[in-house]
Amino acid sequence: MKKYATPTLGFALDILTTPSQDTSLANSASQGDPLGDEPAFTHALTEELLVCLADDADRPARLMEAMRYAVMGPGKRLRPRLVAYAAQACGAKIQDALPAAAAVEFIHAYSLIHDDLPAMDDDDLRRGRPTVHRQFDEALAILAGDALQALAFETLATRLADPRVAARACAELAAAAGPGGLVGGQVDDLAGAEAAPPETEARLLHLRRIHARKTSALITVSLRLGAIIAHADKPTIDRLTRYGQAIGMAFQVTDDLLDAQGDQAAVGKRVGKDLDRGKLTYPSLLGVEASQTHAAQLIATALDSLDTLAGCAEPLRSLARQILGRDR
Amino acid sequence: MKKYATPTLGFALDILTTPSQDTSLANSASQGDPLGDEPAFTHALTEELLVCLADDADRPARLMEAMRYAVMGPGKRLRPRLVAYAAQACGAKIQDALPAAAAVEFIHAYSLIHDDLPAMDDDDLRRGRPTVHRQFDEALAILAGDALQALAFETLATRLADPRVAARACAELAAAAGPGGLVGGQVDDLAGAEAAPPETEARLLHLRRIHARKTSALITVSLRLGAIIAHADKPTIDRLTRYGQAIGMAFQVTDDLLDAQGDQAAVGKRVGKDLDRGKLTYPSLLGVEASQTHAAQLIATALDSLDTLAGCAEPLRSLARQILGRDR
Repeated sequence: MKKYATPTLGFALDILTTPSQDTSLANSASQGDPLGDEPAFTHALTEELLVCLADDADRPARLMEAMRYAVMGPGKRLRPRLVAYAAQACGAKIQDALPAAAAVEFIHAYSLIHDDLPAMDDDDLRRGRPTVHRQFDEALAILAGDALQALAFETLATRLADPRVAARACAELAAAAGPGGLVGGQVDDLAGAEAAPPETEARLLHLRRIHARKTSALITVSLRLGAIIAHADKPTIDRLTRYGQAIGMAFQVTDDLLDAQGDQAAVGKRVGKDLDRGKLTYPSLLGVEASQTHAAQLIATALDSLDTLAGCAEPLRSLARQILGRDR
Repeated sequence: MKKYATPTLGFALDILTTPSQDTSLANSASQGDPLGDEPAFTHALTEELLVCLADDADRPARLMEAMRYAVMGPGKRLRPRLVAYAAQACGAKIQDALPAAAAVEFIHAYSLIHDDLPAMDDDDLRRGRPTVHRQFDEALAILAGDALQALAFETLATRLADPRVAARACAELAAAAGPGGLVGGQVDDLAGAEAAPPETEARLLHLRRIHARKTSALITVSLRLGAIIAHADKPTIDRLTRYGQAIGMAFQVTDDLLDAQGDQAAVGKRVGKDLDRGKLTYPSLLGVEASQTHAAQLIATALDSLDTLAGCAEPLRSLARQILGRDR
């Protein structure tokens, strides 16, 4: 089984690439792929998500409504885009990556529903809207999350044409979502700062191990799924894995910074809550400025990992730069 | 996608086969299979479950403890046995069915953890022990369930040797566990008697649609996975599916009867709770006697479905008969 927690990223020493002002993700990505521009991809992804979330005589209407509420709300669609852009960077058509793009979004959406529950982070607001258990009820929120997880695997197993690719995709996504990935990271995160060792260096390592699973595992597997769908070779998958680990970590550092400093209206959820809950965060351990520098170094590492990939890795480069500038 | 809710079982008219007094499941099952006797199978299954639930640096110790507590406690292991016996009835070695046997048990265990949560059935007792959220805490119970679901798919995808079999097994298990299966049935069950139509006939159909998903879907898919692992042909898979639908329904009818009449000490969980919660049950709709007759008719249908299978379907026959006589 894949390992997620062992941090393999040193603090990068590379000079930070100046973030591009051009934040259009796919401006140089079309290259003949009909889904190579942003609106076409968003439209195709939405369609894929809705097909998988369609009503059916066996599916209770209220359950499907809660699942669609969670999945179809506003969101950056970061993980589906990583699947699509990785597939494209490895020479596949984005169209062929849509089922995996939908599957990672289902896992992401389920994990947010469960994280927001009263027994967990107890949040009322997510992406500017009531959380699922506030909009519906707690039982339905638990069950909608459960159903989304099953749906993720059903989507991979039934909608990826090649059974070898489907089986491998299920194995990778399950490992990223399971006790050694997403769920394991959430368990250690909930345990809070008290469960961490007292020395700053060890606390930082502890925090990185949490985020390697809670955030980076799903981001990394998104890239790996895209590459696997494109039948990429192992060195390419390894490069995309390093890119994923780096942007995953950077994403979490900026998330902590937003929680510490962000504007609630822009972020779309309550801010300042990590400190209230005694959670370990990068700003609390490193300070704000060093956290910003760390995020920038991670993005430089990410960009470096893409060096030998073909020209159509530009959307991945652009996306890495955007993480530094995010405000939500 | 497979349909679960449309009841296809008529009330069987066959004369009930007298239950055998010999309840040893595998007495005629060895037939040269080293796992063909009960203790050998139990031992091998336990080993498979423990290998999948092993500690690992990335897996938080408390999470794994909760997962093992849920899976390794006392239980009938009905679903793993169905996988194994179906594989055997179709000519495969039980050994080859162990990953799928473990996977269905993980799904079953996760669904029980979540069903017992305060926001759902709010149960303190399961199989004579504190439920997971009582033994640990609510957040860990939710997360242990989530991790077990992921582990089920990881087990299928990584431990079944043939990727085509693995992909199909993931697809079947996901459909059985998802919004049109297990979770969908639970949602409609939680909605209670108030959500059902008023007429007895329609209420009965509503109840059967709930159980077709909440109970029969996972039982049926257990049999299908065994057959798929054995590369069985479609008519054979269809026969095992009918057997599964029938014993699944019978299992639920006897479950309702136990809840209405059973001895709490023997059942291992609180009894009489369905009526307290205003849930639809067979005894409340049909009366106790007619429910018993219905269960017997379903078992007769199940036995009938096995007619053309080879002699090593005897464990499946024996198991069907035991469902009628169960007291927990």
